[in-house]
Amino acid sequence: MSGTDVAVDGRRARGDASRRVVLGHAVDLASIEGLDQLSIGRIAIAASVSKSSIATLFGSKEKLQLAAVEAARERYFATVIAPAREKPRGLTRVVALLDRVVAYSHDRVFPGGCFFSAAAADFHAKPGVVRDAITAQLDDWLGYLAVQVRYAAEAGELVGIVGADDADQFAFEVQGVFEWMNQLAVIRDSDEPYVRARRAFRARLVAIGADPAVADLVLEPGAAMR
Amino acid sequence: MSGTDVAVDGRRARGDASRRVVLGHAVDLASIEGLDQLSIGRIAIAASVSKSSIATLFGSKEKLQLAAVEAARERYFATVIAPAREKPRGLTRVVALLDRVVAYSHDRVFPGGCFFSAAAADFHAKPGVVRDAITAQLDDWLGYLAVQVRYAAEAGELVGIVGADDADQFAFEVQGVFEWMNQLAVIRDSDEPYVRARRAFRARLVAIGADPAVADLVLEPGAAMR
Repeated sequence: MSGTDVAVDGRRARGDASRRVVLGHAVDLASIEGLDQLSIGRIAIAASVSKSSIATLFGSKEKLQLAAVEAARERYFATVIAPAREKPRGLTRVVALLDRVVAYSHDRVFPGGCFFSAAAADFHAKPGVVRDAITAQLDDWLGYLAVQVRYAAEAGELVGIVGADDADQFAFEVQGVFEWMNQLAVIRDSDEPYVRARRAFRARLVAIGADPAVADLVLEPGAAMR
Repeated sequence: MSGTDVAVDGRRARGDASRRVVLGHAVDLASIEGLDQLSIGRIAIAASVSKSSIATLFGSKEKLQLAAVEAARERYFATVIAPAREKPRGLTRVVALLDRVVAYSHDRVFPGGCFFSAAAADFHAKPGVVRDAITAQLDDWLGYLAVQVRYAAEAGELVGIVGADDADQFAFEVQGVFEWMNQLAVIRDSDEPYVRARRAFRARLVAIGADPAVADLVLEPGAAMR
């Protein structure tokens, strides 16, 4: 490796580290203020870097927004999907996903509540590549949940799920509970919405034929992960 | 009445009319862009008035935001609550409310979907008098829905509702379906979320003991209002 290569690699590594720091602050701020209201100036202050170095690192506000969506996806995956995937496929994993998604909002993995809820609300009536990136993440999550529900149905654990549309309807109803729970909990600074959401999830699971003893696990935070 | 009084009344009437025109544009824009991102300049262009006359009419951006919340409340009341109140108390009115609230989003009473969903999302992590005004409207709506559910329960039409908490849980779950339906329908420019929401509402009604034949009315737009 030549001296020039080492210097380039060093600059690249420092650039990557700087990007990670800036993105960490960007997604935190976006969960509070909305991804479109994200001001480069505010991020610069939070991350202790200059506005011009943010411009150098990301190029444009839109590229920064797209990078923030990807950074938020990684945090979401590590908090919700990865732990639930350690549980066996079927109803056990479905219950684990529901437990983790409540914990994800409750534990303020993003300080303003779910990054994607805030971002989707901010961009809901603003078409473009950023909105596409946000909805792609929502689609991935709801698609993953629906697929896990279908696995459980195929294993005979959810007799109320007859076809793919039933699984999509379940995912739609879960997401509604999630969105309102997250918003209400942040607005009221209250844990009551989490209790109501767990109660709603238990009812939805029993309605699609889950063993009530397994569905009960979603009522107690963390019980499905033990 | 003196000439001065007539002149003052004339100015007041013109001022009220101007306020109404400006507020109409303000709530429409806020449903798309978010109430906090509302720019006085954009409203001035939409309403064909000067920025300075908006300042004269409302005083401050915060006062304009509070007036916009009140104007949106009036539009919501006229679209959802007033028509449902023409139906008799009990399950009939509950089903009418659910039908109207879907229609309210579907018919784009506000061009960006529900004003309050957009405003609550925009202000969810920004405490203050504007957020208080938004959440007061949400509380009023959910409180009204829960009271109507309790009337139906007292009339023996909803045997699954045993106490006030059951009615509050029902209202929580209804609002979750509503929020997600509204957001998804606007993001995707699709009517599918309305079909899913009506299906979810029917299931929630049957789960709390509604006569399935009456609950079925919510599946067809407008059927509960005939």
